[in-house]
Amino acid sequence: MPGGSDMTLHQFLWRGENVFGDQEIISRTHDGIHRYTYSEYADRVRKLASALDEWGVEEGDRVATFAWNHHWHHETYFGVPCLGAQLHMINILLPDSHIQHIVEDAEDVLLFVDATMVEKLDAAYDEEAFDSVKQFVVMGDEVPDTDLDPVTDYESFIESGDPDFEFPEVSEDQPAGMCYTSGTTGKPKGVEYTHKMYWGHTMSIMTGELGLMNTDTELTIVPMFHVSGWGRPFATVASGATQVLPGPHPEPADIASLVENEGVNKTAGVPTVWRGLLQYAREADPDLSSLEYVMSGGSAAPPKLIDDYREELDAELVVGYGMTETSPVTHVAEHRTDTRDYEGDDLTELRAHAGLPSPGVMMKVIGDDGEEVPWDGESLGELLMKGPWVTTEYFNAPEKTKSSVTDDGWLRTGDIVRVTEDGYVDVVDRVDDLVKSGGEWISSVEVENRLMGHPRVAEAAVIPVDHPQWDERPVAFVVVDGDFDEDELREELKAYVAEEYPKWWAPDAIRFIDEVPKGSTGKFSKKTLVDEFIDDELKREVSESAPGSR
Amino acid sequence: MPGGSDMTLHQFLWRGENVFGDQEIISRTHDGIHRYTYSEYADRVRKLASALDEWGVEEGDRVATFAWNHHWHHETYFGVPCLGAQLHMINILLPDSHIQHIVEDAEDVLLFVDATMVEKLDAAYDEEAFDSVKQFVVMGDEVPDTDLDPVTDYESFIESGDPDFEFPEVSEDQPAGMCYTSGTTGKPKGVEYTHKMYWGHTMSIMTGELGLMNTDTELTIVPMFHVSGWGRPFATVASGATQVLPGPHPEPADIASLVENEGVNKTAGVPTVWRGLLQYAREADPDLSSLEYVMSGGSAAPPKLIDDYREELDAELVVGYGMTETSPVTHVAEHRTDTRDYEGDDLTELRAHAGLPSPGVMMKVIGDDGEEVPWDGESLGELLMKGPWVTTEYFNAPEKTKSSVTDDGWLRTGDIVRVTEDGYVDVVDRVDDLVKSGGEWISSVEVENRLMGHPRVAEAAVIPVDHPQWDERPVAFVVVDGDFDEDELREELKAYVAEEYPKWWAPDAIRFIDEVPKGSTGKFSKKTLVDEFIDDELKREVSESAPGSR
Repeated sequence: MPGGSDMTLHQFLWRGENVFGDQEIISRTHDGIHRYTYSEYADRVRKLASALDEWGVEEGDRVATFAWNHHWHHETYFGVPCLGAQLHMINILLPDSHIQHIVEDAEDVLLFVDATMVEKLDAAYDEEAFDSVKQFVVMGDEVPDTDLDPVTDYESFIESGDPDFEFPEVSEDQPAGMCYTSGTTGKPKGVEYTHKMYWGHTMSIMTGELGLMNTDTELTIVPMFHVSGWGRPFATVASGATQVLPGPHPEPADIASLVENEGVNKTAGVPTVWRGLLQYAREADPDLSSLEYVMSGGSAAPPKLIDDYREELDAELVVGYGMTETSPVTHVAEHRTDTRDYEGDDLTELRAHAGLPSPGVMMKVIGDDGEEVPWDGESLGELLMKGPWVTTEYFNAPEKTKSSVTDDGWLRTGDIVRVTEDGYVDVVDRVDDLVKSGGEWISSVEVENRLMGHPRVAEAAVIPVDHPQWDERPVAFVVVDGDFDEDELREELKAYVAEEYPKWWAPDAIRFIDEVPKGSTGKFSKKTLVDEFIDDELKREVSESAPGSR
Repeated sequence: MPGGSDMTLHQFLWRGENVFGDQEIISRTHDGIHRYTYSEYADRVRKLASALDEWGVEEGDRVATFAWNHHWHHETYFGVPCLGAQLHMINILLPDSHIQHIVEDAEDVLLFVDATMVEKLDAAYDEEAFDSVKQFVVMGDEVPDTDLDPVTDYESFIESGDPDFEFPEVSEDQPAGMCYTSGTTGKPKGVEYTHKMYWGHTMSIMTGELGLMNTDTELTIVPMFHVSGWGRPFATVASGATQVLPGPHPEPADIASLVENEGVNKTAGVPTVWRGLLQYAREADPDLSSLEYVMSGGSAAPPKLIDDYREELDAELVVGYGMTETSPVTHVAEHRTDTRDYEGDDLTELRAHAGLPSPGVMMKVIGDDGEEVPWDGESLGELLMKGPWVTTEYFNAPEKTKSSVTDDGWLRTGDIVRVTEDGYVDVVDRVDDLVKSGGEWISSVEVENRLMGHPRVAEAAVIPVDHPQWDERPVAFVVVDGDFDEDELREELKAYVAEEYPKWWAPDAIRFIDEVPKGSTGKFSKKTLVDEFIDDELKREVSESAPGSR
């Protein structure tokens, strides 16, 4: 059969090492800044693979990490898959019970733990759930006090490894990585990434306006335990870009210092991080002038934030979209030919979209009736996707696969979107988070964004509460700083929503709270809101409400 | 098994049509300029596929084209493979006997012929060789006088086709395309491209400094019958770039007019074309200010040409490298981080390299002893490559496969190269074209380039001639404009070579000719030189020569 070679991560490692051997990886660790070249990196990747091989890791075995972004974690990104084993990146922010569940579900044989996260892992450790784990390796050169057993440190573990180790032949269909979804309902589900899926995704994020190139200096702030660090650790090596890793618990000052010292021009993370960095920049005035593109994902970025980055930092904050099931990036809010001259609000609106579908990905939007809805900037439906790095199967969860993947291989994302005529997607809501009121949908995300656009509001979350007449009605939980009159502000906010949306989109009840509870990926945890705040009094208030007629 | 969907061309067509439906394809035809949108293009691609299906083309059938670059040819690029059939692009410049050979070898069932090439195909037609071809389709809306039979015109052929035709499921391993090598020795050999090979190659040429983007306007001058137009017709659709096609026999004036009228910023072709365009620009002064990147491949680009493009046209002429067996692009002379500030000679030297290996491709350079030679800018060896779009098999030619592909899947390119410490490849010669003198190699390409650097020399070709003492000695064929004293210039040129290279690299004999004969891809045809010019007198002159001692 004609064809070329398999698509595997080895090709990217080869390029980083051989063509860009003198480019640097700069890694902030619990021990200070560590820097070395791709050439030294590749030697250590082979030492690691050789040590894992020697220890007994076999093809297809799962090797877990529980760590922040640093060179040790980065070495596992290639060292484990290039050996033919599978890298399972555990989200360190998960509750203990979830950590136990996913280690047990994945049957990890060996676990690399961040020196700063040993205590957290100790707390989550459960003999039965961790039964498959035969070795713990602390990322550093010493082992802190711990009950984990047997345990050694990373530098000792790889010490006898062979820097000239030859990787075995690995099939492109071999699972190379694995992450668990942070589902708001039920237990996390595993998603596996084959070499070929990573290969396609890596190439994709090297294309287009924001594509990573060898002349870039990339700071990957998105944690490497979130969907493979959005694939950026692979793409930096493949493209030969300089790679900056922000280490454990990066604070805005740490990020600013890395940008300033290393001349970072591209970076990626969630809006919360960008808000923090901006605030810090205003106070401390670091030199962030090297920044060109700030990719923002995980949740919507407020237009004000995009404006502020452009005006105050001369950097373009650009939204990207994706999910655990899609490796993750499938959309980037990049320019089109006819938008190149956009400025101000027009440009901000463009950058705030979830984005245009990336090359290789196909999408469609399905309405309630199962038919495709038009791309008209208005019609809503569920986003379905298909492509070489869009999963077609959940791990150990055939029922979830059945409910989420259509017979002809389309992934149901569960996200409600609309698409502009030009192909820019806007995520309006999760299927599960929509408020269904009188047979019509109210987008909780849009009401939240409107509320957060009010000058007094810092955070806002909207959830549905049952209503006898309208099935469901929206209730808002709002965070406001400083003093205010609750009743007055409540009416003001309802009116503020009704200014922009139909009157019946305004929340029937508004509660003021200190902080919106957040999940392990920094997103609002509506489940916690429901558990903590939806009491009988609130239910009664809503059921007795009489929203504006439709 | 976990995984995403197959990698097929359908995904690129989907993106071009749906996300960039209003981008244009501008096509210069024998009938004038034709323009339509990707949206209209995709409808016609489906009409074509539907018509082929209706006619009886089945999965895996080969459908040939014999055509220049225009929208009809472009429609076959997606229409044929998306149906599950295989597009065989015949080089229209081949001698008749080669055309007969490859049509017979490929067993094409249907053949699309350019309206302007019917006469040429008529001449090449041979009943036995063309036995498999059951239908000829002339690209246009009428059929000129011809013996081809049965024959119809393209517009009639697709007229009843269905613009809503649904493509069948096609495997990524299905051969989608096919081209024949223009080997200097022996008959042309077929190379097949699967959907996955095209997919990987397409993504690759969308990355890096020269990567195609939706905001680009690309003029593909390299003929679409040369290794799939270097993959650019696929990448323009995938990226959503505006696509300009120069049509039959494009002259410099045609090219300049398309650049000027359409605002072309990227383009690709062979050095001969760039030389012609530059000459025309000097005479006619068209507005070529939109040009940014001029990709040059097929053979080495003289530094002077690169300088002139930068200085006179403010465009960056950048060399790329590849071959039929590699889909073709594997190298591009793009910037590295530490070259971004290069200017003048440094920058020109960089752009003149065959380039850095593209992401996904791996290479090594093997010396006479079968061992890898170092990347030191000096050591010579044969270039071997491996990657998802590097073929591992010739069509119908198991012996060629055996001699050209190693057991572990590396393609022997037959090109002698050296590699700088930074990974830039320089092609020094073909294995078959090296002059082996006294056990040492003389690079005919380098001697040619040196000669062409002389202000009097327009073209120069160097070939080996037998020598009793030194095995082989170089002989040069030189084209010089205007009047000159042959003996005087001959000595001057020998001295000129010896200034830069060892004295024994200077040709033992120099013949002045009117033009260097060229093959079907525009490269110097050394075979013709040997046949036409190596006579007894020349042999005697060389055998009696006493080159400078080593």
